Order: sequence, then C-alpha cells, then structure tokens
Amino acid sequence: MAIPQIHFDDHTPKVQQIVEAFARAIEQGQLAAGSKLPSVRELGAQLGVGKFTVNEALDRLRGQHLLTSRQGRGHFVAQRQTQPSSSNWVDLLPQDLLSVLRRPMLTGQGELRPGGGHLPEDWLDSEALRQAMRSVVRAPSLRVAGMGTPAGFLPLRQALQQKLQGDGLAVSVEQIITTPSTLQGLDMLMRLLARPGDTVLLDAPCYFNFHANLALHGVRVLTLPRGPDGLDFAALERLLAEERPSLYVTTSILHNPTGHSFSAAQAFGLLQLMRQYHCHIIEDDLYGDLHPNPPPRLAALAGLEQVTYLSGFSKTLSANTRVSYVVAAPQLAANLTNMKLMSGGVTSELFEQLVYRLLSEGSYARHRKRMVQRLLEAGARVEQWLRRCGCELPMGYEAGMFIWARLPAGVNGEQLAEAGLKRGMVLAPGALFGYEPGMGEFMRFNVAHCDDPRVWAAIEPLLR
Amino acid sequence: MAIPQIHFDDHTPKVQQIVEAFARAIEQGQLAAGSKLPSVRELGAQLGVGKFTVNEALDRLRGQHLLTSRQGRGHFVAQRQTQPSSSNWVDLLPQDLLSVLRRPMLTGQGELRPGGGHLPEDWLDSEALRQAMRSVVRAPSLRVAGMGTPAGFLPLRQALQQKLQGDGLAVSVEQIITTPSTLQGLDMLMRLLARPGDTVLLDAPCYFNFHANLALHGVRVLTLPRGPDGLDFAALERLLAEERPSLYVTTSILHNPTGHSFSAAQAFGLLQLMRQYHCHIIEDDLYGDLHPNPPPRLAALAGLEQVTYLSGFSKTLSANTRVSYVVAAPQLAANLTNMKLMSGGVTSELFEQLVYRLLSEGSYARHRKRMVQRLLEAGARVEQWLRRCGCELPMGYEAGMFIWARLPAGVNGEQLAEAGLKRGMVLAPGALFGYEPGMGEFMRFNVAHCDDPRVWAAIEPLLR
Repeated sequence: MAIPQIHFDDHTPKVQQIVEAFARAIEQGQLAAGSKLPSVRELGAQLGVGKFTVNEALDRLRGQHLLTSRQGRGHFVAQRQTQPSSSNWVDLLPQDLLSVLRRPMLTGQGELRPGGGHLPEDWLDSEALRQAMRSVVRAPSLRVAGMGTPAGFLPLRQALQQKLQGDGLAVSVEQIITTPSTLQGLDMLMRLLARPGDTVLLDAPCYFNFHANLALHGVRVLTLPRGPDGLDFAALERLLAEERPSLYVTTSILHNPTGHSFSAAQAFGLLQLMRQYHCHIIEDDLYGDLHPNPPPRLAALAGLEQVTYLSGFSKTLSANTRVSYVVAAPQLAANLTNMKLMSGGVTSELFEQLVYRLLSEGSYARHRKRMVQRLLEAGARVEQWLRRCGCELPMGYEAGMFIWARLPAGVNGEQLAEAGLKRGMVLAPGALFGYEPGMGEFMRFNVAHCDDPRVWAAIEPLLR
Repeated sequence: MAIPQIHFDDHTPKVQQIVEAFARAIEQGQLAAGSKLPSVRELGAQLGVGKFTVNEALDRLRGQHLLTSRQGRGHFVAQRQTQPSSSNWVDLLPQDLLSVLRRPMLTGQGELRPGGGHLPEDWLDSEALRQAMRSVVRAPSLRVAGMGTPAGFLPLRQALQQKLQGDGLAVSVEQIITTPSTLQGLDMLMRLLARPGDTVLLDAPCYFNFHANLALHGVRVLTLPRGPDGLDFAALERLLAEERPSLYVTTSILHNPTGHSFSAAQAFGLLQLMRQYHCHIIEDDLYGDLHPNPPPRLAALAGLEQVTYLSGFSKTLSANTRVSYVVAAPQLAANLTNMKLMSGGVTSELFEQLVYRLLSEGSYARHRKRMVQRLLEAGARVEQWLRRCGCELPMGYEAGMFIWARLPAGVNGEQLAEAGLKRGMVLAPGALFGYEPGMGEFMRFNVAHCDDPRVWAAIEPLLR
C-alpha cells in the first residue's frame, strides 16, 4: 500500500500533519476502505518519525472512525458510514491516550515515586482530615438521603468566595460551582464551550490529561512552547491570527510540568492578545496554593468573561476527597450546574462538608503554610542535586511541586523511565507531556518525592 | 413570519416532528437567519400543541445551534457557521431539560415529598452508614494521597461480583467498573456507544434524566409506551425495522416511574427482537434490590455482549455515597475505565471502602430485607388510598418505591403539582417523565413518602 507522502512543516505537530494527510487520503479514496496499513515500525520508517508519533496518529485516526484495528492483526481503513454494531463500538474511543494514562503514574504502584503528581502521604495533614471527617460523620446535620445541592454545598461555596476574594477575585457565590475533580470541571466546560472541530490551544509541555480530555471532544489541538518568558508573543499572535483558536487551556501558576508561573507582565501581554483575537481562557489553578507569593491569577486580572477559572484540593488536601470548583461568568455557571445534573456529575455533600470544615476552621491555611515552606526547602535541595547530576533546568526552581529538567546529553527520558520502573521507581518522562520533538530529553521531577536519599541512590547511576 | 405547516403523524413524538420541520425550514432558508420566531404561545396555537411541547422543540433547536435566544427578547434563527464567541457560548446547552431538572424534585426543598425519588431519611440505615464511615476513617489503610484505582476499589468490585452472581450474572471482576452515579455511568456509556444522530429508544414514560442525558449527546430519541404487558412487540418490531435504533435504555425491574418489571416472558421476547435488529440494551437496575423476588435481569438472560448493566446504591444506601457501577463486556469495560480517566470521572476510594464494608459485613443484606418488607406494607396502604381517591393504577402495585397513577378525570398533573408546591409539598407530575400526549393525566407517587396521614390530608382536597 502506498501511504501519503508528507512534507512536514515546523508549525504544526507532526502527529497532526500525519492525521490530516491520512484523513485526506482516506476521504479521497487513495487509501481504500478495508485495506491494511503497514506496521507501526514500517510507517515510522517511511514517514521518518518515531513509534510514539505513529501510534498517536493512528489512534487519533481511529478516534475519528477513519481506521479500525483488530487485536493483533493491525490497522485497517474503515468502511465509511457504517452503523455502530456492538462489535465495533469498542473501538470508538481514541486509544492513543490510554497508553499514556495507563502508565504507572496513575496506578499508585511503585515504592519510590520521583515522577509522581501528588505529595507523599506523610506530607498531607491526614490527621486533620480524619478529624474533620469524624466531625462530619457525627454531625446530626449530615443528610444521608437525597442528593447534594446541584451547584454545591452552600457554606463551602461561601468559604471559597472568601478565599477567592483574598486572591483578588471578587465573585458572587452563584458563580462558584463545585465539581468532583478539576479534570471533570474541564470536561464539563469543554462540553459547554467547544464543538467538534474547534481549535484549542495548549502549552507545550502540558498536563497529559488535558490532551486526553480534549481528544474526547474532537477538537483540533495546537500547542505553543512555554518557556521561562512564558509564551512567545510574536508566535502567539501569528497563531491566533492564522488558526483562530477559540479556547486556550493553561495552568497559570506553578504550571505542570514545568513549575513556571506567568509573571504579571507576561499575564498582561497574554491577556491582551487573547482578548484581541476573542480566544477564551480556561485557567487551571490547581497549584497556586503551593506558591508562597503567587502572582495575580489571569481571572483576577481580566475577569470571568474572558477567563474561566478552575481549582481544587486534590493536590493540597487529598485526591480522595473529590472537591474541585469552577468559577465562571453567571450564565456559564448556571449552565454548568445544569451540566452537572444532566451528566450525573453532582458532587458529594459529604466531602464538601469536610473541605468546608478544614477551610473555615483555619486548619487548611496552617497546613498550606507548612506545605509551602517544606516544598521550598526540598525544592532547593533537589534543584542542587539535579544540577550536580548534569541536568539543565530551563525554568530553575521557584516553588511548588515540580522541576522540569533536561536530562544529561545521551540520556533518553522514556528509556530512563523504563529502567526506573524495573527498580520499582515511577518516573515522569517528558514524552508524557507533549508530542513535540525534543520532549524525550526532559523529565518532570516531584521535589517532595525526590528529597529522599533512596531516590538519589537509585537514579544517579542511570543518569550516567 | 410564516412558520412551517406540520401534518403530525402518530408514530413520532410531536416535539421531534416540530424540530425536524423547523430544522428543514431553516436549512432551506425558508426561515431566514436572524429572523424572530413568534412567541411560544403563538407557536403553540398555530401548531395546535401545548406550551410544554413548543418549549421542548425550541430548546432542542437551540441545542442544535439552529436557534438562539436572547433573554426576554424571544427566539431567533441562528446565523449559520458562526464561531462560538464567549457571548453565545452560554446558549449552547439545550435549555429544554433544565426547566425539568430544576424543578423542586432535585432541590431537596419541600417538607412533604410524595413525589420524591428517594427513600425518606429515616428509612435508610444511617446508623450503619455512620458506623461504617467511622471505621473507614479510623482504618490505617485509608490512603489520603493518590487517587483510587481507575476501575474502582478492588475489594468492592469483588463483593459486587458475588452479589451479581447471586442475581444470575456471572462476570469477571475486570468487567465491573465503578462510577460516581448511575447517570454518570450512562453518560460515559453514551460517549462510548453513541454518536450524534444515532437513534436511541426509551420507554414512555421514563426517568427524566434519561431524556436530559441523551439530549447532551445529540442523539435522536424515540419512545415506545411501556404498559402492564411491557412493550407492544408488534409496534416494537415495526419501529426497529423502520427506525433502526442502535440503543435501548431501560429500567428492567421496578421501572421508574411506573414500578413495572419485565416478566421473564416479556424479557425473553424483547431480547429476541433486540438481537434480531442489532439494538444494544443499556439496562438500568437501580431498583432491583427493592424487589422481594426480582425476575431475571436482561443482562443475566442475554449476556453482556447484548446488554450492558448499570446499578448502584443511591436508592438503597444513600445518594450521598456516590457509588454506582457498570457491568460490561470486557473491551467495553476497559474503555470505560479509560473514559473515567480521560473525563475526570475517577471515583472516590473512600466511599467505595464504605460500601464494601456494608456489603461484606452483611448489614446491606439485612437493611435491604427490612426495606423491601416495609415498602410492600406501605405500598399496599398507598395503593388503597389512591384508589379510594379515584385514581386508576394501570400497573397496580407490585413492590418498590413507585406507583404510577392516572389522576381522577379533570385533574391535571402539572396544576396539581403547582398547587402542592404552594403547600410545601413536592409532587412528580407525569409530564416530567415523557413528552407524549396524555402524560399530564398521570402522577408518580413514592409509597414511602406517601404513607403519611399528613400527605393524605394535603392531597385529598386537591384531587376533588
């Protein structure tokens, strides 16, 4: 079979260029329905790209129902306009991101977790959590029957209103809607704000679940490199003018995986361009509370008509108490409540009562202060150690949980991660955070988990 | 403005016929972009249908982006192919079902809740729940950091496997995936199994959130009346042959709102037809545990290739412990786990540990037995009372929570519900459960809430 010839340009991710070329070839009949594609290895060789890129492209094409795959038998060009039957339904989900998501990152396996996305158990204030939970369970006000209030437990939303006020974001309680996780908050916002085919802008690198979630919505994803100076405004303006993205999803403060925070000036320039080109921003602020002196949030600067704000307590309290929240313009907030009802995403009042207690009794503020300080100290040590090992840290270390490190020359992130896994150690290779070339040279390190001689002893030999 | 003339046929819901006629007129340019539609009242008069039907049709058209609405200024034909801008994004969600969902049903307001969808607080075993929660909180094994296992807490899934085995459904643990609610389970299944434009079959009447959720997925909904004999097989076969629905979503046992359970013979006939026409079934079994002697589940009869099974504990334990589960064919179960990860729908291990304890220590089984008996006794009294009041009960009362009653001649369900609300009483008028004509004559009663002289005293005067 003759596959499409592709002359890659530098502007668009290769994965996307492959997807577009194959989609065109399939639609124009150059690749006939039912015909079998070459193997992943052959495709990679013919296109001059890696296995990871080929798999990603194949999986997106499968997500668009242009290809089907049969277990162990390879990829085939799909019959067009077939009714889903129970035998091919199972193929409908883009498999691409599953491999990413299934990685040990999420399984909780591995004794040492230098690549982990959470704080270690003993860093969290589990005693305060248990204590608050005991109070909630004992309280006669605990309603067992019935659901929670659709928008979320009112006293919690009032406490969040106060907290947001402290961060410079003055909103009404009606604009605060709880969600079971920030990712589910993003998912519901995408269902409300995007249609298939819309163009959405992400940072490169960025949190892998953003890519995963956007794939569910059938949007076209563009990425722009995020460096120490934020985004390159000239490149951003070209992209906004040419590609007209309608949404930009970003983590403004202590960005995952780089740890970068938009300075006030970077934020201001960004917001001006986004406003000029009518690109709405979804601001993920899951890590802001880990910053000792956070710069202004985008939503606080530009307001909720331009920026919808997402945050939660999965990183600072516990991922198990599923309490996150969206802050949005009034009509969008109302629609989000309806989305919660229509999609079954109504949250648990029990957990919301729990977080409310921790917020209102001051133990969250105390815990946060301790955590910030402890992270700064661990971060300084881990920064030193990584530099000593020959890593380059383009963003340095400012605060928070993550350091983004370029590995010593000749060390590949994915191979390092595989070697680590054999030693019971979970690492986060750069390829998890973006499909752009060069990600393989990077690694995300969690400073809380890395501040441990056992980790140093295990990784150092692998870095040589 | 000249609106389309519609000659209604009896086969398709009027709402859908209106939507299709208007969509055609808009696409063919007979209704010009930007032009204003007549008021709801005028449209109703011109089309010869009720306000409820008009609103539903307008909202679906809005959901398809064919209409826009401006607060207080009416409905307008949308400009085609407009980019979403932050000002019109807020219109994208079909508003139709919001009115339904926002009804007092879900707000927990109202002292008396004869129309409620849950058991009263004092019917639930809240002491066992609190006790189990205290144990979970005390247990040293409680992990505060990290997420739960993506597919769900393994010991709970093992306990569910045993429970399902008792109901005649032999499955592997890998086929059981927890979800935060059955509605979210349905939502995730729809994302995996349906594409916009697919045809999905529902019962008439049926649980209002099924309609709400399907609207989110852009599928075409057909309904078939469900009576004491189940579905009319001749009508079902005609519909399967002509309309080719790919999915049928139903509550097989103690159906909400009618209380009807498919007998083994009805289930067998149904499954044969569905198999013949390749229509997959999503079986909601949220109420089966309230039946003293449940007939076989559809999934147990036909297997999981033909029937995907959904159940949970929101009705029998507490809506606040958000533990439900899907049982599916192996590949679909794997995709569902991925969908949980990609959409942020990962469940809380804490609640799953709680339900596991109640299941494994036998307190759920004891509680269930008591509840079933208590419901049977209350149901017998409420059945008598409703008949005395002049209601006709087409399904009688078999078991479970609900009685579906035709109100005495001249009493309209929605008016009755409004009058009840003024007296602090939440009722469930038939119009909540379907858009078909005639629903206005019906009302769903919750036998646990109705077994109360205060309810009788409050409703009886309204039924005359």
